[in-house]
Amino acid sequence: MNEGNKGTSLSEVGEFGLIARLAAAWQRGAQKPSEKNLPGLRLGIGDDAAVIRMQTGGDLLVTTDMLVEDVHFLWLPRRLRQLGRKALAVNISDIAAMGGKPGWAFLSIGVPAKATVEEVEEIYAGMGEMAARHGVTLAGGDTVRADKWVINVTLLGLAGQEPFIRSGGRPGDAIVVTGTVGDSAAGLQLLFSGEGDKSEDDLPEDWRMLISRHLDPTPRVKEALALVELGGVTAMMDVSDGISSEVNHICKASGCGARIDLTTLPISLAAQRLAESCGRSVFPWALSGGEDYELIFTVPPEKVSSLMAFIGEKTRTAFTVIGHLTEPGDGITAVHPDINDGAPFNLAAKGYNHFA
Amino acid sequence: MNEGNKGTSLSEVGEFGLIARLAAAWQRGAQKPSEKNLPGLRLGIGDDAAVIRMQTGGDLLVTTDMLVEDVHFLWLPRRLRQLGRKALAVNISDIAAMGGKPGWAFLSIGVPAKATVEEVEEIYAGMGEMAARHGVTLAGGDTVRADKWVINVTLLGLAGQEPFIRSGGRPGDAIVVTGTVGDSAAGLQLLFSGEGDKSEDDLPEDWRMLISRHLDPTPRVKEALALVELGGVTAMMDVSDGISSEVNHICKASGCGARIDLTTLPISLAAQRLAESCGRSVFPWALSGGEDYELIFTVPPEKVSSLMAFIGEKTRTAFTVIGHLTEPGDGITAVHPDINDGAPFNLAAKGYNHFA
Repeated sequence: MNEGNKGTSLSEVGEFGLIARLAAAWQRGAQKPSEKNLPGLRLGIGDDAAVIRMQTGGDLLVTTDMLVEDVHFLWLPRRLRQLGRKALAVNISDIAAMGGKPGWAFLSIGVPAKATVEEVEEIYAGMGEMAARHGVTLAGGDTVRADKWVINVTLLGLAGQEPFIRSGGRPGDAIVVTGTVGDSAAGLQLLFSGEGDKSEDDLPEDWRMLISRHLDPTPRVKEALALVELGGVTAMMDVSDGISSEVNHICKASGCGARIDLTTLPISLAAQRLAESCGRSVFPWALSGGEDYELIFTVPPEKVSSLMAFIGEKTRTAFTVIGHLTEPGDGITAVHPDINDGAPFNLAAKGYNHFA
Repeated sequence: MNEGNKGTSLSEVGEFGLIARLAAAWQRGAQKPSEKNLPGLRLGIGDDAAVIRMQTGGDLLVTTDMLVEDVHFLWLPRRLRQLGRKALAVNISDIAAMGGKPGWAFLSIGVPAKATVEEVEEIYAGMGEMAARHGVTLAGGDTVRADKWVINVTLLGLAGQEPFIRSGGRPGDAIVVTGTVGDSAAGLQLLFSGEGDKSEDDLPEDWRMLISRHLDPTPRVKEALALVELGGVTAMMDVSDGISSEVNHICKASGCGARIDLTTLPISLAAQRLAESCGRSVFPWALSGGEDYELIFTVPPEKVSSLMAFIGEKTRTAFTVIGHLTEPGDGITAVHPDINDGAPFNLAAKGYNHFA
């Protein structure tokens, strides 16, 4: 990577040359063929379609996400590897949220004419890194010209059991979330203020963590597979739009209400400190900032203690009960002693809306 | 559709409202649930991933294409249905070229802020129309904001037998192409000259056909499935970049040379007449114009006569032998009595190159 944009031009290598270099860049990022990769890819890049031999008659999981420059991400020349990792991570998170194992990625990329081959390679190397962590194989794609960067990932995975969907929650079920929420939105706030252009060494550790949580999320694959092993989850999804939006989705799909206790929300000290230093509440980040890529799921209340014991040992990831599902007539509400005099208030689905 | 852009704004319906309207628009385009659709979709739009139950342990085919405004298509308000049909058709063509049946589509669309809901609906209705013709179900997608229109389709299909790939050709095999080649490039030429904005009734029939071949290609699914039934195809792909490029691809993958007889190229009278009226040769359109979405394939020479009889009756589509594969040392050449004094000349792979 060089920041003066003095690398190899796209016209020097042409479309087929670029495809070959990108596949190699992915492999360099992945470092070695992973033993975790799902078997079955008979034919990858280079024909009209990829061919995947389905080993069994199980369930195939498919998710797709389009990321557009200046809408989903800022173009930060220092952060291209992270951009690659994130583009794949958000799709891996979707497969994990169904309780599946990610398998085969199809990448379409729109590249501005002014871009260098090295920039595109850096993005692919980042995807390869993330792929190697979770056993994903690059199986196909498309490489085109565009005015701004556009990355579309379609990821296929396999469900080892009945997929976790959003509609199985029942009144009384505990609502559980992994890790912490709000860090990603806090990190985005720092990026908007220009901190993302600084080198890592110039940032306080708190800020580094928050920015990293935004640019470089970790999909909760291991946690999801532990939940599959444990059993008992009634509904699950990943936190991409924000807790308030996701709770609304689960309630709508499951035909339930919900009550969230805001004092139990898992919020990092770093996010709290940043909010305080900006003189604002941390709750909007935690509830509707989105892009945390944690898991949110429901389990019957009698299952909670065995879940905590099993999962704690298995994953070393924090799992927090933030509320419970209620009868549909109860509405979707939150409580906090300092808000609304401690009385329940409506938890609106204020996730990110592309067309608001 | 109205051309004054006075329809419903995206902000009026929001992201989730738009998704619901687009799914409905697809269904309106499809008119009725097709009985041809492959079974197995357990869960479509509305969760983290789609769930497709794989009925057998067969081969899954996956293809993806990204179409960008002003790169792959011109924004023609009168032609949005055709744009939708084409976006899906080019992917159906890829699945057909492997000898597969198309099944499940995943659509990501980037929509400019100035667009109306009705415009996006029109594109989806076009996709639904094409989907209904070939048994494709809308199974998922992503809807985002972008500066220019971007449409990414990932299409999954099933191979009923060993997929047709590019690498099985052998010296002596006949090279066969369906339909006619060059019409699409001729149609594009008319569009560039502004004829696409006129209403259909104002265009001569020849021109209407050529423009339609460019904007509204028919994927050769029925022809491909007839070839599967007949058997004997050694290599196959679709003509997306142009005959010269595709012959080079097949030769490279199969380790062969080739000789193409240009006098046998199936070129429509309409394309020939337009080329003559422009005072230019029709061969560049036919050889490297691309986007014809015909099938090009190889079969052993002894198979040709039974193929012609069987396919002619089964599909009523023209199949033309345009040359044959040769030993690799012979190179990839073409002959025509009026070119190079009738001596063979090198057939360069001059397909469309995004980054040339």
